[in-house]
Amino acid sequence: MRVLGIDPGTAITGYGLVDSHAGREALVSYGTITTPSDMEMALRLYRINKELSHIIDYFKPESVAVEQIFYHRNAKTAISVAQARGVVLCTVAASGLTVAEYTPLEVKQAVVGYGNAEKKQVQIMVKNILNLDHIPKPDDAADALAVAICHVHSARCKYFFRGE
Amino acid sequence: MRVLGIDPGTAITGYGLVDSHAGREALVSYGTITTPSDMEMALRLYRINKELSHIIDYFKPESVAVEQIFYHRNAKTAISVAQARGVVLCTVAASGLTVAEYTPLEVKQAVVGYGNAEKKQVQIMVKNILNLDHIPKPDDAADALAVAICHVHSARCKYFFRGE
Repeated sequence: MRVLGIDPGTAITGYGLVDSHAGREALVSYGTITTPSDMEMALRLYRINKELSHIIDYFKPESVAVEQIFYHRNAKTAISVAQARGVVLCTVAASGLTVAEYTPLEVKQAVVGYGNAEKKQVQIMVKNILNLDHIPKPDDAADALAVAICHVHSARCKYFFRGE
Repeated sequence: MRVLGIDPGTAITGYGLVDSHAGREALVSYGTITTPSDMEMALRLYRINKELSHIIDYFKPESVAVEQIFYHRNAKTAISVAQARGVVLCTVAASGLTVAEYTPLEVKQAVVGYGNAEKKQVQIMVKNILNLDHIPKPDDAADALAVAICHVHSARCKYFFRGE
C-alpha cells in the first residue's frame, strides 16, 4: 500500500509518501509545495491544486491521509490553513482517491505511542520508522510523513481486527 | 461588465450574477450549490468545484467577488466555510479570472450606504437595485448578489477616480 500524507498550508504544504509492505514502512519521497506571500490568494491555492495533482499523478498513491485542524489555533491562521486544506481535499477527490482524516492526537498515538508526545519525538520516530539518516526537513514534510505512517498503522489495525 | 458574486459554504454556496451597463445593474441569474451533510467532506468540496466551474463556463463572468470571512465567528463554522472558500478561490483562479475580496462592512456600505446595516436591509436593497419582485432566496443567494453589486459599485468608483 502506498500512502500520501499531506500537511496543508497556504505558504507551505508538506507531503510525504510511504510504502507499506509485509508490516514494514519505506520512504518513497517527501517535499513541500510552497507559494510566495505576495501572490494573490486565489493563485496560491491554484498552485497548490496543480502541484498536488502532479504529485498524485506521478507517485500514484492508493490512499491519502490529512491531519485535522486544531480548532483552538489562532483564528486567522486556522482560516488560512483551512482554505489550503479545502483545496487539498478537493484535489484528492478529483483524482478519484479517498482521504482519511486523523486528529493530531491520533497521529502522535500511532507514531510515538502516546498522544501527548512532543513534536521532536514525532520527528525522531518518523526518522526511525522509515530508517532514515536524518529527520526530514522542513517540519511540514516530517508532519506529512507522520500522518502517512499513522494511516498505514491504522489500516493495518483495521485488517487485523477484521481477521484478514 | 458581468460580475459573479459568491457566498461560500460547505452545505450551501450561494452565487449571483449581475450585469452592469450604463450605470445600471441587471440580474442575470442566481442560485445555490448544495451538498448533503452525509457526503464525505472531500467529495462535497469537489462537487462545489465542479458546479462552480460549470456556472463560470456557462455565464462567462468577467470578474468574481467573494466576501471575506468573519474571524470572530464560531471556529468550527469558520473552518468549514474557509475550506469551501479555498475551493471557490482556486476554482476561479483555474478559470483564469481574478477574485476581488470584500469585508462584510464594505458590502453593506456599498449596497445599503452604511456599514452597520441589518441583513434584511441588505436584502431589500438587493431587490430594489436589481428591480426584482421579491427578495432572492435563500439568504446565501441574496448575499452573493450583494457582494456582486458591491464589486460593480467599487469598480465604478475606481473608474470615476481614475477620471475614465
